[in-house]
Amino acid sequence: MNAGKVWLVGVGPGDAELMTLKAARVLGEADVWLVDDLVGDDVLALARADARLVRVGKRGGCRSTPQSFINRLMLRHARQGRRVARVKGGDAMLFGRGGEEAAWLRAAGIEVEVVNGLTAGMLAATAIGVPLTHRDCCRGVAFVTAHAQDGGEPDWAALARSGLTLAIYMGMKRLDRIRDGLMAGGLPATTPVAVVQSASTPNQQQLLTTLAQLPAQALAAGLGSPAIVLVGDVVALSSLAEWPDGLSRAA
Amino acid sequence: MNAGKVWLVGVGPGDAELMTLKAARVLGEADVWLVDDLVGDDVLALARADARLVRVGKRGGCRSTPQSFINRLMLRHARQGRRVARVKGGDAMLFGRGGEEAAWLRAAGIEVEVVNGLTAGMLAATAIGVPLTHRDCCRGVAFVTAHAQDGGEPDWAALARSGLTLAIYMGMKRLDRIRDGLMAGGLPATTPVAVVQSASTPNQQQLLTTLAQLPAQALAAGLGSPAIVLVGDVVALSSLAEWPDGLSRAA
Repeated sequence: MNAGKVWLVGVGPGDAELMTLKAARVLGEADVWLVDDLVGDDVLALARADARLVRVGKRGGCRSTPQSFINRLMLRHARQGRRVARVKGGDAMLFGRGGEEAAWLRAAGIEVEVVNGLTAGMLAATAIGVPLTHRDCCRGVAFVTAHAQDGGEPDWAALARSGLTLAIYMGMKRLDRIRDGLMAGGLPATTPVAVVQSASTPNQQQLLTTLAQLPAQALAAGLGSPAIVLVGDVVALSSLAEWPDGLSRAA
Repeated sequence: MNAGKVWLVGVGPGDAELMTLKAARVLGEADVWLVDDLVGDDVLALARADARLVRVGKRGGCRSTPQSFINRLMLRHARQGRRVARVKGGDAMLFGRGGEEAAWLRAAGIEVEVVNGLTAGMLAATAIGVPLTHRDCCRGVAFVTAHAQDGGEPDWAALARSGLTLAIYMGMKRLDRIRDGLMAGGLPATTPVAVVQSASTPNQQQLLTTLAQLPAQALAAGLGSPAIVLVGDVVALSSLAEWPDGLSRAA
């Protein structure tokens, strides 16, 4: 029997057309799919008729599938010679715990290949018509999570001083903390901020606001997870016409 | 005559299979391609037989094509009703000046659509078998350029304090400055660093080293542009076996 293999496949944040050609090929060849939440039915449509699809996300049922169970499932199928696709929304190696799964599998002697995918922060910027970087206002972008397993937070003050565009994941329940932390770090109250919910999907919604107004405006707009909070001067370049009063458009 | 349109298409950092399904579709439909450097022949193979291909990169000829000329070319073809693909390596909206081109075209009344692509920093991590983030060691990743039009630099000290993985673009001629700036900001001399040249291409090469040894080791290995410098504890998770003496592998 041939040795099996596991592909960690990121399929992008929503629209199935945003997965890579490689992802589509690997998924079309897979014998077994282990599929996270936020992976849509149009992605699952790529599965072979005889492929086995297993939903292991936290929202599919009542409870999250334990990581140890997912690991054992990947291991078992790979040892039986199968081509296993571990399918994640966005990119598997950016907030996806894909690194832990890859390390665990390699330690067990299983071959692992990563197939990167677009991450929601990139699509959030595209949704509001802005680049993530611009030579006039920022030297880069930080993709950060506001929610850590240990309950801690990013160093908001250091991020505020970095001069980078910020794309904040998993922040919708911590908007007050984000605003307070970034303003304490020196970002002006008028810093342009966007919230983009479900970027690249039919449910996409966006809000343009300021750092000071972020928590109240996001609440008023009824925005929730999954969403990206974009912070920085690039947001003011938005081609959308939904600017609130008091926030000037970039020239 | 129908109105034309411009698509800003990022095709990923090298391997043509890393472009999105959407990018492949848009390129296959385009009447005119304006193509940057670092876009390979396997990408160009997607062009229709009757499509017009124009190389506008800095390396194709003796001199760079002026931005104003590229802008006028996009505008002229779009006004003539053509589907124009502006093709860039990596992602068009991250260090690609795609934001400036999009803003210029929109101001001229031309419809613009962005098709995102994978960025080299993501593929650099994949090349050495590490995730960009890991819940045990970093809350995110910063994609930053070491080279700015104005000759300035990122705030290395703030980046050092951010606790983020750093993926540094266009840094190969500034390795001394990067090392000195990050160490002055508090990163230890033993911080794990990787250099990945031409990620995802047949010319891919990588080096695993430490922050203190970065400039000398990169020189000794003969590495040059285009390359990504990855800095942070995730680098120590690498599944490669090329670790130098004095740098311990992660457990």
